[in-house]
Amino acid sequence: MTRKLYILNGSNLNMLGVREPHIYGHTTLKDIEQNCLALAEDLKFDCVFRQTNSESQLIDWIQEAFLHDAALIINPAGFSFGRIPVLDAVKLIRRPVVEVHITNIHRRSEEYRHSTISVASTVVICGAGANGYLLAIRAVDDLWGNQG
Amino acid sequence: MTRKLYILNGSNLNMLGVREPHIYGHTTLKDIEQNCLALAEDLKFDCVFRQTNSESQLIDWIQEAFLHDAALIINPAGFSFGRIPVLDAVKLIRRPVVEVHITNIHRRSEEYRHSTISVASTVVICGAGANGYLLAIRAVDDLWGNQG
Amino acid sequence: MTRKLYILNGSNLNMLGVREPHIYGHTTLKDIEQNCLALAEDLKFDCVFRQTNSESQLIDWIQEAFLHDAALIINPAGFSFGRIPVLDAVKLIRRPVVEVHITNIHRRSEEYRHSTISVASTVVICGAGANGYLLAIRAVDDLWGNQG
Amino acid sequence: MTRKLYILNGSNLNMLGVREPHIYGHTTLKDIEQNCLALAEDLKFDCVFRQTNSESQLIDWIQEAFLHDAALIINPAGFSFGRIPVLDAVKLIRRPVVEVHITNIHRRSEEYRHSTISVASTVVICGAGANGYLLAIRAVDDLWGNQG
Amino acid sequence: MTRKLYILNGSNLNMLGVREPHIYGHTTLKDIEQNCLALAEDLKFDCVFRQTNSESQLIDWIQEAFLHDAALIINPAGFSFGRIPVLDAVKLIRRPVVEVHITNIHRRSEEYRHSTISVASTVVICGAGANGYLLAIRAVDDLWGNQG
Amino acid sequence: MTRKLYILNGSNLNMLGVREPHIYGHTTLKDIEQNCLALAEDLKFDCVFRQTNSESQLIDWIQEAFLHDAALIINPAGFSFGRIPVLDAVKLIRRPVVEVHITNIHRRSEEYRHSTISVASTVVICGAGANGYLLAIRAVDDLWGNQG
Amino acid sequence: MTRKLYILNGSNLNMLGVREPHIYGHTTLKDIEQNCLALAEDLKFDCVFRQTNSESQLIDWIQEAFLHDAALIINPAGFSFGRIPVLDAVKLIRRPVVEVHITNIHRRSEEYRHSTISVASTVVICGAGANGYLLAIRAVDDLWGNQG
Amino acid sequence: MTRKLYILNGSNLNMLGVREPHIYGHTTLKDIEQNCLALAEDLKFDCVFRQTNSESQLIDWIQEAFLHDAALIINPAGFSFGRIPVLDAVKLIRRPVVEVHITNIHRRSEEYRHSTISVASTVVICGAGANGYLLAIRAVDDLWGNQG
Amino acid sequence: MTRKLYILNGSNLNMLGVREPHIYGHTTLKDIEQNCLALAEDLKFDCVFRQTNSESQLIDWIQEAFLHDAALIINPAGFSFGRIPVLDAVKLIRRPVVEVHITNIHRRSEEYRHSTISVASTVVICGAGANGYLLAIRAVDDLWGNQG
Amino acid sequence: MTRKLYILNGSNLNMLGVREPHIYGHTTLKDIEQNCLALAEDLKFDCVFRQTNSESQLIDWIQEAFLHDAALIINPAGFSFGRIPVLDAVKLIRRPVVEVHITNIHRRSEEYRHSTISVASTVVICGAGANGYLLAIRAVDDLWGNQG
Amino acid sequence: MTRKLYILNGSNLNMLGVREPHIYGHTTLKDIEQNCLALAEDLKFDCVFRQTNSESQLIDWIQEAFLHDAALIINPAGFSFGRIPVLDAVKLIRRPVVEVHITNIHRRSEEYRHSTISVASTVVICGAGANGYLLAIRAVDDLWGNQG
Amino acid sequence: MTRKLYILNGSNLNMLGVREPHIYGHTTLKDIEQNCLALAEDLKFDCVFRQTNSESQLIDWIQEAFLHDAALIINPAGFSFGRIPVLDAVKLIRRPVVEVHITNIHRRSEEYRHSTISVASTVVICGAGANGYLLAIRAVDDLWGNQG
Repeated sequence: MTRKLYILNGSNLNMLGVREPHIYGHTTLKDIEQNCLALAEDLKFDCVFRQTNSESQLIDWIQEAFLHDAALIINPAGFSFGRIPVLDAVKLIRRPVVEVHITNIHRRSEEYRHSTISVASTVVICGAGANGYLLAIRAVDDLWGNQG
Repeated sequence: MTRKLYILNGSNLNMLGVREPHIYGHTTLKDIEQNCLALAEDLKFDCVFRQTNSESQLIDWIQEAFLHDAALIINPAGFSFGRIPVLDAVKLIRRPVVEVHITNIHRRSEEYRHSTISVASTVVICGAGANGYLLAIRAVDDLWGNQG
Repeated sequence: MTRKLYILNGSNLNMLGVREPHIYGHTTLKDIEQNCLALAEDLKFDCVFRQTNSESQLIDWIQEAFLHDAALIINPAGFSFGRIPVLDAVKLIRRPVVEVHITNIHRRSEEYRHSTISVASTVVICGAGANGYLLAIRAVDDLWGNQG
Repeated sequence: MTRKLYILNGSNLNMLGVREPHIYGHTTLKDIEQNCLALAEDLKFDCVFRQTNSESQLIDWIQEAFLHDAALIINPAGFSFGRIPVLDAVKLIRRPVVEVHITNIHRRSEEYRHSTISVASTVVICGAGANGYLLAIRAVDDLWGNQG
Repeated sequence: MTRKLYILNGSNLNMLGVREPHIYGHTTLKDIEQNCLALAEDLKFDCVFRQTNSESQLIDWIQEAFLHDAALIINPAGFSFGRIPVLDAVKLIRRPVVEVHITNIHRRSEEYRHSTISVASTVVICGAGANGYLLAIRAVDDLWGNQG
Repeated sequence: MTRKLYILNGSNLNMLGVREPHIYGHTTLKDIEQNCLALAEDLKFDCVFRQTNSESQLIDWIQEAFLHDAALIINPAGFSFGRIPVLDAVKLIRRPVVEVHITNIHRRSEEYRHSTISVASTVVICGAGANGYLLAIRAVDDLWGNQG
Repeated sequence: MTRKLYILNGSNLNMLGVREPHIYGHTTLKDIEQNCLALAEDLKFDCVFRQTNSESQLIDWIQEAFLHDAALIINPAGFSFGRIPVLDAVKLIRRPVVEVHITNIHRRSEEYRHSTISVASTVVICGAGANGYLLAIRAVDDLWGNQG
Repeated sequence: MTRKLYILNGSNLNMLGVREPHIYGHTTLKDIEQNCLALAEDLKFDCVFRQTNSESQLIDWIQEAFLHDAALIINPAGFSFGRIPVLDAVKLIRRPVVEVHITNIHRRSEEYRHSTISVASTVVICGAGANGYLLAIRAVDDLWGNQG
Repeated sequence: MTRKLYILNGSNLNMLGVREPHIYGHTTLKDIEQNCLALAEDLKFDCVFRQTNSESQLIDWIQEAFLHDAALIINPAGFSFGRIPVLDAVKLIRRPVVEVHITNIHRRSEEYRHSTISVASTVVICGAGANGYLLAIRAVDDLWGNQG
Repeated sequence: MTRKLYILNGSNLNMLGVREPHIYGHTTLKDIEQNCLALAEDLKFDCVFRQTNSESQLIDWIQEAFLHDAALIINPAGFSFGRIPVLDAVKLIRRPVVEVHITNIHRRSEEYRHSTISVASTVVICGAGANGYLLAIRAVDDLWGNQG
Repeated sequence: MTRKLYILNGSNLNMLGVREPHIYGHTTLKDIEQNCLALAEDLKFDCVFRQTNSESQLIDWIQEAFLHDAALIINPAGFSFGRIPVLDAVKLIRRPVVEVHITNIHRRSEEYRHSTISVASTVVICGAGANGYLLAIRAVDDLWGNQG
Repeated sequence: MTRKLYILNGSNLNMLGVREPHIYGHTTLKDIEQNCLALAEDLKFDCVFRQTNSESQLIDWIQEAFLHDAALIINPAGFSFGRIPVLDAVKLIRRPVVEVHITNIHRRSEEYRHSTISVASTVVICGAGANGYLLAIRAVDDLWGNQG
């Protein structure tokens, strides 16, 4: 059976490489997508990679992932903070959920330090930059084996 | 030049596989050590793997890592919480620091949720189980390249 | 004169009967809609029943209810928490506002306990399950009479 | 088998219709009792309706309800706030517990906003005025069916 | 028309002169009662002076004062802290309410510093010892004149 | 001279063996009383054992213990939390005061964790079940000797 | 020996009768001064009555009161809140200190509720309006007798 | 070179003149737009004026302003509170950012007092009513000169 | 009738252009005064411009403004924080009050973020530099018209 | 089968009888050890009694107790506060755990009031002085019977 | 070049030797001044020593010190707490700033524990009594050398 | 009689001159030791100077100082924060205790601002760099004279 994997990106990540480069670096989301799809293919995942600035779009996609029995890698970005609707959607997922933050959020200012989503995540990876997505795919691969 | 890597483990991790297995699983620290040394060798790291229940021992080892210009992977376990001396030692390290927690600490009770060390870590990975150590080694490998 | 009634449902309620059934039960939103429309008809309400995962959609519908001088029954679900724009929209309504939660939110974890909307509601009913909607319709019926 | 129902009222509710009428309205507790007994009879409940200013009296009555395997509708009024002995007594009840507040307590000043009892209630209804008691009886009727 | 005045005393004040004399002094409640009745007579008050360890008794007496359209002097003692039912009863009173504390509660330990009742009092006097009751009677006398 | 000992029990302890047996066990208060009286007799205490759901009754009994120059063992149960009048009464006692909780309150939910009474107790014992009363009697016996 | 009494008034009290009359009434500070001097003379006090908008002036006067071994009646007004220098000066006084607030500060908004000075006062009287000053003089008279 | 200026309005501002007129006045957003466009034209700004109830729409427009190297005047309304995605978008802007609130939010209830956006704004103006927009345009004009 | 306008400046603003120029810029208060007087004259205000390091001086001037029925522009600087006497004085003013801060205080460290005065201000402008004073004068001009 | 019992003592208890004797009394730890060993022998325990100022030593001993399937009596002293590694070690123990404090920690200053360890203890006894150890041994004896 | 040194003393220090001698000792400020001037002369400082109860006077003197390019030793006394204007003035100083408290403020009650000034001080010395001033002079001497 | 003085240094101070030199400077602990021993000899102290990364070692040395009736100068470094065992040991000392911090901890981030030890110190000196040790020795010299 094919293993499905959704990689979903939240608010302002379409500006990656532009927005506050001293914090986030110059890699674009397109670069990350290509690297992710390549690794996902190696590991035999059927992989979807998307970005949105819309919370409702993000919720709809997470529900879609749930209906396809997919695993979820999510970089909620600005939707990490105080968004119960996203949290509720993430709780639907029955496969591994890996939350990724490009920066180490524990080093940033107070309002960026506590992700509401983490309580529903299986794994949280932060501070590894664009490479964090690849670590996340490996984590899903390992956990799926453990669960399946 | 050889890249040195210290993997240091804090309090009660010698009991891994015994202590609260419903939370931490049955893998022992010896199993983790073998997997880490194998991957580290593949990636050409000169790797040290140790555990201690003593905060001062842990500090001495971190200072030693600093003196060898090593990268650091640290699972501080109980020393994650409120230990400024460990934090101060970690701040010495000039190579990448990856903090690993076997469980997703954001899902546990309040006193286990906020690691004092994270502010000095480059990367934080939690909830990936024993596999988290391997992800951490890959993260160090990626970051060292980025830094060097 | 016809009495208009809007019954609006917030995030993830389209997943009712699927999402965390140990908390929310197996009744679907379609079941609830049918029961509501039946009772509303008995009580001579001109009733609208809708769901959305989009905060802006929810705000637009509340504004629409205001423009139709309708009463409002709202289960904000995830939009109960920290959403000032929804609160501001609810404040527009001049007819009775009944806030419904399927579960008793006071028994859940901290982030689900305090609805921002309640300060603008006339009545709050929680914990009565799908039946809470029917109690809400009766409450509107009683209050409209008292107001009119 | 007869279904027993206790409707218990806490402190100062004997002053209903007198005390702060701009908040609580002019209906007296006697009016409410009559409406409750009528509806309870329709729904085949064996119903008791009482009021007390004494916490210990209230506890004794709740224990009595428990010993009769009754459902409980409780308007704790001033005993809603910080009264662990009442909470402990309510926890005894094995039938549905519906907590009623005449006003929407979430709109009042801070010291009236958080009912200690709610964590032990099945349903909470507030802001519906005297009608809240009738909604509560319907809620018990619905829940008892669901439980039995 | 006669002016009625209730002077009500809360928990453990029957032990005055015995309980923690280094804090409360050696005057007994009987002494205070005599001084109060004498001054009240001088000022043409119809005065009642009572003490109870029972919260419900205290509430009943306050309701009685309300029904007699009396002014109220209250030393709630231990019932000053966290007792919403007493606060609700005090809010009934339409004549001046003077709250008296024998000691200056602002100088005591944290749990004795904030009287819940004060928000419903017209005047608060603390730290004047037994004399505080006499000052309270004079305050009622002055305020009644201002109100009447 | 005879040593007097009051063993006083607070709210809902008359339901012991019935109320939440998964927390409190199946022993009844009658069983505890018999064990206490037997041990107290062995140790030459003149012992009184009582229970009440009434705070004012509890205060009166503590004042009575004070007037008899008795030691006090108290399981305040629900009256442990936020009851300054009980605290004030306990402060009267000049003999040892041992506070007993059947469960380890530090393991329970937040509202059961901090006893207001403890600041006036000589000894606090919690979590030892019904046996805690017997330990308390031994503690009084030891302390009385030290004091006397 | 003559008993000296300082009555000192803080910020904006020169505006009494003008400033926020719905809160403070129409009595002017001149009216209060005359009433105070009259009563003080009756009770054989050598009395000083002053007002200032300057914190340092207030401190200097309190030090002067200390050097004259005077009692102190102080209405610190805006200097009640967060002024350690005034508190330190008040602590100098060895005679009775009575703190007066014209309004019941416990009923006002948060920033007006907690007087820093009260911990150094013997007596606190609030809410009695201009009459509060006269009660304060009587309190000093009574306390001086008790102390002397 | 033309100076571009985006004036963006958040949730429920389309109801201006209708919603809570005792707080916001009777001016409509259309009125404001006309005044703004007139002044902007005078000052040689190429000006865009928009409103949305959708957070994602607002983010998209801010990103658009960034891509056009525009200055930003933003009245986030309900999106002022706890919206990190909007904050992140505003941080993109390299020209002056002026945040406008029609009312003085510091005078409103707690949940309306702290704008999350302000930390990224150059200037904050609140309480000036519809005129606040015109002051904001003047502020941009002044700052652009200072920056350019 | 002439419109009077007081522009008052608080602590350390005499050092403007010297003190922490990386935060406040090099403009001096004299420069600001000249610009203000010019614009005020254009708008037909009878304008007073003053600075003081003395809280009592500032209070006296605000009272003077009140007695002249003037509008008030105030940059309280260090007197923005925790100064109830200044707040009380500002509450006297019946004409528009505009509070100005040269920097955006919401971006500074915690102790500079919350002005106590704002609750009594009509308008608050911060972050516009010296230009903020001119915007303030325009705001007064606009509001006076609306009020008159 | 022999029942094993570890009695472990934390920081500075080697100074018992010397350190702050007004708080802890003059009994030495040697005295306590002798009394404990005597009672343990009577009750057929194989008993170990040790003290250390080293957290890691304490952890090692608790792990040793776990490996011997022993019960644990622990007076963590200074290690009661904020020491997750000790807490984690105590959670290993499968036999009864009794936590002892010589003083009633609830009466001491804030930093000594909340033991982190208690959440993992079966029983907590504080304030009984050296006798607390003997009560603890009796508690273990009673609980072991209940468990075995 | 001469090194200038201002030694400034805040509120109530003119009462040193009189005010609360159990806390501050019997040394007078005159004694301290003489010792300071002697040591300052030895170390070749041009030294000014002053005291004031006026915050504005203190600010003016600090500004004067700044204009003379002087170092500053400051015992703010009551002006240590919550005084942003003093803090702002101290931030002007470009030479070493040594803050002195006669007592160890960390041992006093809560309102005396956190000096607002310290964040702008180079060195803080507390608890050394009158000798603290001499240590401060030595500290300035050492730091000036390091800076110069 | 010889006056004994222990100078004890906590965690990571062996790295002084290496660790975060932008905060701590380039002086090594060896340099400090030499300066201290020289001054101590001048002042006739029998002086011990030591460093450790081990909390238990530090406690043992403080106990040793106590047994030699020595004064104590302690730079607890990382052991300043949340270490009750160190605090308890310091409380043993009967001679002056001077706590030294090389940096002004009040200027650092939150977790470094509040030393738990200070409540037991006689004097606290922070921010004076390596010179702080010499000031501390002078402070001990002065205090010993005052005490002796």
